[in-house]
Amino acid sequence: MSAHPRLSLNQATIKYAPLAEALRVTAEAGIGAIGLWREPVAEVGLAEAARMVTDSGLRVSSLCRGGFFTMAAGAERRASIDDNRRAIDETAALAAAGAAGSAAVLVLVAGGLPAGDRDLVGARQRVADAIGELAPSAAAAGVTLAIEALHPIFAADRAVISTLGEALDIAEQFDAASVGVVVDTYHVWWDPQLLEQVARAGNGGRIASYQVCDWITPLPADSLLGRGMMGDGHIDFGPLTRAVTDAGYTGDVEVEIFNQQIWDAAAAEIAALTVRRFGAQVAPHL
Amino acid sequence: MSAHPRLSLNQATIKYAPLAEALRVTAEAGIGAIGLWREPVAEVGLAEAARMVTDSGLRVSSLCRGGFFTMAAGAERRASIDDNRRAIDETAALAAAGAAGSAAVLVLVAGGLPAGDRDLVGARQRVADAIGELAPSAAAAGVTLAIEALHPIFAADRAVISTLGEALDIAEQFDAASVGVVVDTYHVWWDPQLLEQVARAGNGGRIASYQVCDWITPLPADSLLGRGMMGDGHIDFGPLTRAVTDAGYTGDVEVEIFNQQIWDAAAAEIAALTVRRFGAQVAPHL
Repeated sequence: MSAHPRLSLNQATIKYAPLAEALRVTAEAGIGAIGLWREPVAEVGLAEAARMVTDSGLRVSSLCRGGFFTMAAGAERRASIDDNRRAIDETAALAAAGAAGSAAVLVLVAGGLPAGDRDLVGARQRVADAIGELAPSAAAAGVTLAIEALHPIFAADRAVISTLGEALDIAEQFDAASVGVVVDTYHVWWDPQLLEQVARAGNGGRIASYQVCDWITPLPADSLLGRGMMGDGHIDFGPLTRAVTDAGYTGDVEVEIFNQQIWDAAAAEIAALTVRRFGAQVAPHL
Repeated sequence: MSAHPRLSLNQATIKYAPLAEALRVTAEAGIGAIGLWREPVAEVGLAEAARMVTDSGLRVSSLCRGGFFTMAAGAERRASIDDNRRAIDETAALAAAGAAGSAAVLVLVAGGLPAGDRDLVGARQRVADAIGELAPSAAAAGVTLAIEALHPIFAADRAVISTLGEALDIAEQFDAASVGVVVDTYHVWWDPQLLEQVARAGNGGRIASYQVCDWITPLPADSLLGRGMMGDGHIDFGPLTRAVTDAGYTGDVEVEIFNQQIWDAAAAEIAALTVRRFGAQVAPHL
């Protein structure tokens, strides 16, 4: 099976592969795009990473990730904002290094409640404030900040933005070229308002990234690693993929899976499986 | 510390206590009400359970639980509807046996996706259909069916109703005396629309039960058991409790906790801890 032309392999799916291997495996699987992560990029340095990306011939579909700015004013918050500005620059450089059709999209994970803080409303407001600080830098760099609503299971400790509607409430305060949203099936599949919020995102030109993986049960002991390959879980990829398509999204579709069993397999095997499952579960609806 | 007059101990919090012990421990802790479960009631038989409840002098605040009716038409669905009718009768009998101020409230957990079924919209519709079948029986028995939105972590395998707004969308199709909702802090605390939906529930007279426990991290390996004693986790009980109060809810407030460490303690200790934590975390906002 050849890879669907819009399939992108998010690097987290082959977590143990360093950047060079990740690029090679992705290209050898016939996949045209890759979603990068900052840590493996930093391992080789940004300039070298950009050269490697160019050499690979792959498109870059996004960089993961910025965010983690729910803390109150202070040194820690300033450091987070500064780090996000660096991430914006990295996003621009890597997208420029990628093949034509690359997307300068920085995925933002909001961050959880600060230690001992139970004020969810306040933490959410600080996310909006941080994005307000970063939006001009993103605009200047030609980067879209993509707010990712994470599943409510992570509301306390990882991301206080829990629904696509809430992500849009923030994104819509800014220019659509600078701030959009990620639609990630794993995080939003349960939402009774999902289809109307996808349509809303499309109308506003806010869908900056579409990521797919499955919700599997039973959840593993480490709830961070409960993502499954498409077809192994409970998500019906048809209606949501069609909604994202109907909403006008024409970009790459990333497969991003955190799963120990998958990570334990060889990267090339994972890539091949990703191609097959994407072809069966997602591609027919694009 | 004496127990708040509106505190009710849900029997699941002292899971290993048989009915007789649960009633005794609750009363001895100075708690005025108990939320019962069908299984320990069935162990002694309904008539004997009703006598024991009357002898205890406690109010009954709810019966857990009915529901689990997401399956398609067929024998299994009929059996579920029939079982729910029995649960309605049990609810009426136990509330009648309880002290003045008891509530004839049957908590409904929707059920998850049937095996191999990925049609979440269809499963949700079948929940509404089942409640439509049961509402006349509830009305005839003077029982309120209380739809409980469960945290989206359970959407696949336990309850396809994931938000308070969605529970209200169903409840509002029926008479408020027969169909209401449960507001359970653990399940709904993350919801960005929470306060407006609580107000909506109050305006319609739909809050049939208010249950409290905390969201703790890290989640335990068994995600069903990740509920914490109030004060041990991330939930701010003030705003939500005040919203429920402002919405006009004047009934008992149940503490319902599934947590292995808590279950491993002696029932009397759990009851005493519940009294203290309820007094500190919830009572000031009632």
